[in-house]
Amino acid sequence: MSQLVVKIPAVAAGSYAICIGNNILRDVWSKLESDFPHRRKFVVTDSNVVSAGHLKTLLGGREASVFVIDPPGESSKHMNTVVSIIEDMEKGFFGRDSLVVALGGGTVGDIAGFAAAIFKRGVKVVQIPTTTVSQADSSVGGKTGVDSTVSKNAFGAFWQPAAVYIDVATLNTLDETQYRAGLVESVKHALIGDASYFKFLKKNTEAVLDRQSDVLESIAYTNCRIKAEVVAQDPTEQNQRRVLNFGHTIGHAVESASEFKLLHGEAVSIGIIAAEFIAQELGLAKKSRLDRIKDMLKALGMPLVIPAELGKNVLIDLIKRDKKAVNQWPRFVLLKKIGKVLYKDGQWAHEVSRKVIEKTLDRLYE
Amino acid sequence: MSQLVVKIPAVAAGSYAICIGNNILRDVWSKLESDFPHRRKFVVTDSNVVSAGHLKTLLGGREASVFVIDPPGESSKHMNTVVSIIEDMEKGFFGRDSLVVALGGGTVGDIAGFAAAIFKRGVKVVQIPTTTVSQADSSVGGKTGVDSTVSKNAFGAFWQPAAVYIDVATLNTLDETQYRAGLVESVKHALIGDASYFKFLKKNTEAVLDRQSDVLESIAYTNCRIKAEVVAQDPTEQNQRRVLNFGHTIGHAVESASEFKLLHGEAVSIGIIAAEFIAQELGLAKKSRLDRIKDMLKALGMPLVIPAELGKNVLIDLIKRDKKAVNQWPRFVLLKKIGKVLYKDGQWAHEVSRKVIEKTLDRLYE
Repeated sequence: MSQLVVKIPAVAAGSYAICIGNNILRDVWSKLESDFPHRRKFVVTDSNVVSAGHLKTLLGGREASVFVIDPPGESSKHMNTVVSIIEDMEKGFFGRDSLVVALGGGTVGDIAGFAAAIFKRGVKVVQIPTTTVSQADSSVGGKTGVDSTVSKNAFGAFWQPAAVYIDVATLNTLDETQYRAGLVESVKHALIGDASYFKFLKKNTEAVLDRQSDVLESIAYTNCRIKAEVVAQDPTEQNQRRVLNFGHTIGHAVESASEFKLLHGEAVSIGIIAAEFIAQELGLAKKSRLDRIKDMLKALGMPLVIPAELGKNVLIDLIKRDKKAVNQWPRFVLLKKIGKVLYKDGQWAHEVSRKVIEKTLDRLYE
Repeated sequence: MSQLVVKIPAVAAGSYAICIGNNILRDVWSKLESDFPHRRKFVVTDSNVVSAGHLKTLLGGREASVFVIDPPGESSKHMNTVVSIIEDMEKGFFGRDSLVVALGGGTVGDIAGFAAAIFKRGVKVVQIPTTTVSQADSSVGGKTGVDSTVSKNAFGAFWQPAAVYIDVATLNTLDETQYRAGLVESVKHALIGDASYFKFLKKNTEAVLDRQSDVLESIAYTNCRIKAEVVAQDPTEQNQRRVLNFGHTIGHAVESASEFKLLHGEAVSIGIIAAEFIAQELGLAKKSRLDRIKDMLKALGMPLVIPAELGKNVLIDLIKRDKKAVNQWPRFVLLKKIGKVLYKDGQWAHEVSRKVIEKTLDRLYE
């Protein structure tokens, strides 16, 4: 028997820019023209974004190839949509020298980013998030993917965007529920990374809910700063990036179990409370901390308990399928204190017994 | 407007091993157990490979989770198969700590490799190629993907294997046509990288066609060595890796136009002749070189002309969709001499006018 070794060369460090402003969407297309010359642009958006007028603002009367996801939202976040996008690009003779432009919320960004990741083994994508959740979270960091019939983001890739453009003015067209639910990611960022940001959110809750553009620009910047710091340490989630999953392990299970009747942020709100219950159970947290977090989530109008109709066994089954699970059981990100994640034995996510999780779920139904 | 920069850290260099031998398949599973401990294995294969007895040899009586692609071959190389594989893995509670084991020819490797690349944003895969074409070419280098209704490998990813195991004894179960067609990739490697290897193939044609194991081990090693050298320079095909596409630009178009009635190697044989016609047209090659190459391909029983029923316009249309096309027209890899690719103006693939390509196609129908 003989043996050969194939070397895989190192990949150099890179970077991408996030531009944040109020009413900047109308200027993005010319920026794309100058930053990505000679690249044919293919826009992916959804019917909500079109109705809200954002596509029109982006294009400013220009012609472009556009794929409109319809119906919008999680029900379209599956492989068939990705296949349709790619086959449209092929029929239009788009090549590897294309630029996919994702205009919309988290679902649009996930679908379009994944399509870009696998089209002809990868083309560039820029993200233009238009919702609170995508501006705070999903547009940055390169996670892309779609759902299978079994679980969320079962198909996916790490595919970093070539640039991100955040126009906080687009948030004005969101309905109140969607707007508020997306703010939970801001709370998450504060809890895992910046106690003073938690205070800022507390102090400015009213201005945030009033959608005051200066406050929105400020929180968009802080969210991206916190997330970018984590992602730069660990882009493919080997360890530290897991802190971004705070509140998401049980959150995702609740979201899936509700068949996406609960919005992502609403489910993560419940997941954050769950993480605090676990921390209490393990003797890591006092009730006063939970109360502060509850107050914040309550002020945003978020749910704090699991709807009674979601069965506990269904949730356990979904938790076992968590992407980060080892031997069919995930690890859990927990807070050391507000603004700081518990880091122990070299790990950012921790083993928690099934018994503790069951007890936590029981408490969450109350 | 404010701006933030997200840093993407460098990725360290890596490597993977290719083990080559005769009758080694029976030992591979224990090697997997020791090289990849604590990883649950999920085997992807096809019904041909099962009939040939290779799955049985690999497992040696052990139980394993297996997905059998059926029908085998290009007609199953689409997204639905990938979705079925991944949903099977999910239902079996496979996590990111899985190991996909691809046992079979190029189609199995492409499908299984792509499934591994996108399952939960990527899990490890090992390749166990069982055909001449996959042992010579597709199992090494990390190209994975499936076809769309529009073109070949429209969906895909670069996803390097964690290891490759080549047992030349598996080639004994191939039928004569498939066996011979796969040898074209060996001819390609000789033409682009090693004149002495071309002479070796010429001298040992009979022994190769007789499937003598020592000669097969030797060519498996040389193929992998040549390919590994190229891939190590340019894993994601930014420039130099394109040399591996020698004969493949027109070859892929012919293969697709024939609706895969022509085997990959048969189509590439025609594509290699096409590349030589282009080189002649551009004054880069003498007829004697073409004759040497033709003799070799003829000795393997390969076609040298395009079947009359494949329309020229269909071929032109497919050529425009080539993955590496810029402005809807691909570049072409050409030989400087046998064993050496033409490198000019910093490029390994060259602009060739549509007129020259049309003339080349006309000559290929004769």
